[in-house]
Amino acid sequence: MMLINGKPAEQISAQDRGLHYGDGLFETIAVKNGVLLLWDRHMLRLNSGCSKLGIPQPDYPLLRAEAQQICDGAEQAVLKIIITRGSAGRGYRAPINVIPTRIVARYSWPEWPQRCWQEGVYVRICQTRLGINPLLAGIKHLNRLEQVLARSEWDDPDIPEGLMLDQTGNVIEATQSNLFIVNGGRLLTPDLSSSGVAGIMRACIIEIAAKLSIPCTVTRLTLAEVQAAEEVFLCNSLIAVWPVREIAGTVLKPGPITALIYEHIQSHSI
Amino acid sequence: MMLINGKPAEQISAQDRGLHYGDGLFETIAVKNGVLLLWDRHMLRLNSGCSKLGIPQPDYPLLRAEAQQICDGAEQAVLKIIITRGSAGRGYRAPINVIPTRIVARYSWPEWPQRCWQEGVYVRICQTRLGINPLLAGIKHLNRLEQVLARSEWDDPDIPEGLMLDQTGNVIEATQSNLFIVNGGRLLTPDLSSSGVAGIMRACIIEIAAKLSIPCTVTRLTLAEVQAAEEVFLCNSLIAVWPVREIAGTVLKPGPITALIYEHIQSHSI
Repeated sequence: MMLINGKPAEQISAQDRGLHYGDGLFETIAVKNGVLLLWDRHMLRLNSGCSKLGIPQPDYPLLRAEAQQICDGAEQAVLKIIITRGSAGRGYRAPINVIPTRIVARYSWPEWPQRCWQEGVYVRICQTRLGINPLLAGIKHLNRLEQVLARSEWDDPDIPEGLMLDQTGNVIEATQSNLFIVNGGRLLTPDLSSSGVAGIMRACIIEIAAKLSIPCTVTRLTLAEVQAAEEVFLCNSLIAVWPVREIAGTVLKPGPITALIYEHIQSHSI
Repeated sequence: MMLINGKPAEQISAQDRGLHYGDGLFETIAVKNGVLLLWDRHMLRLNSGCSKLGIPQPDYPLLRAEAQQICDGAEQAVLKIIITRGSAGRGYRAPINVIPTRIVARYSWPEWPQRCWQEGVYVRICQTRLGINPLLAGIKHLNRLEQVLARSEWDDPDIPEGLMLDQTGNVIEATQSNLFIVNGGRLLTPDLSSSGVAGIMRACIIEIAAKLSIPCTVTRLTLAEVQAAEEVFLCNSLIAVWPVREIAGTVLKPGPITALIYEHIQSHSI
């Protein structure tokens, strides 16, 4: 199910700059019992992304109405919103009058096994490295070839995620989730000022840590630090939190701080 | 005028991975008197890009037939070819059976003034820096936000191009062209192993230099070296060669080696 610029449709113009240049942004939102979880935070990030790329802001109340319309009656679903700089002629230069393209699409909820939350997940280390570009870092834009190539590295259904390092070997994130580690009772999560996507759930968890008086630091993290951690977990808007039980052969255990964070998310319906 | 998977069309599926992730490649080809200039070289680059991204190769004879069909009778035109990994559900992971999307589109020839070739062009220096990613460097893929942001920095119609530096300050290219400088009678052009697009005309010029016994080196170039050069020129498949007459206030002169290269391109109908 999909609305394009407010109308049920399945196609966009082949002149759309989203296609030609990845010139746009997206949000992936969890929908439970018809509620669009963390809607305001997703819209704040979209707003920030539009500002950074110079794309005119969408009409947010309209976007919300369309999202609600398409998710009406959904017990559990994934909502994806794409905003592009719209259609134009050939060439990188944007047209003077940009009419953004607005796509609101509903997808079925992925069938992840319960053990991902209960026992934790197996994680690999991707060969594909993230590029370094502070200008685009953090933004959930449509230039995602790095993630596509990283995700193409493996087929094993028992490994749902892979860690991605940057060009200098720092661990930045996983292909579709952010990463936290626990070390000495403190939370640490990679700095995203040069690479990576600043996830909504990551931002929530940083705030939850403050509420729970768990020290949390945004910093550089090497792979050795991640593999030597007391606990490691992944997060995004759909999964909330997955403990990591193994990283490329290094065995870890789901631990108490991961459980505390996850329980807080569950009990506060985040 | 456009053919999508061989049929006249103006829309593509909103599930296309070219839109969602920039998961694809493109080529921009000059068409003169119905001839698709440098066709074989463009197809070799497309072939290389498909291999690197793991996208199934298009049927090249079919692609050529479609390109000829759409450019039939064109005195002067721009042909753009886009190949994407096709449509799929949500998520970075590619489907098992990829059916690539094939777009063949004809655009009118841009109206550049003759003085761009005769007197040279004014060039600015872009604030937007290119990211560093050896895996994607050189490939003409659809992740082009850096170029879009760079080209959005200025409006002055007298400045057709802007130089782009990488994160460490090396000059890499211009927003839609590659760069050569002349120093001590030698040609130098930036190394593209970490950033930039490996242009077809750039490759031609490296070969032409060899034929004309002009030493040519692929190397790192600082902005100071570029601004201190005896000659600077830009190149791409559409413009062939533009001498640079000024870079952000530094005055240059169109020089003999630039002219020699351009004459060779013209006389050999490259």
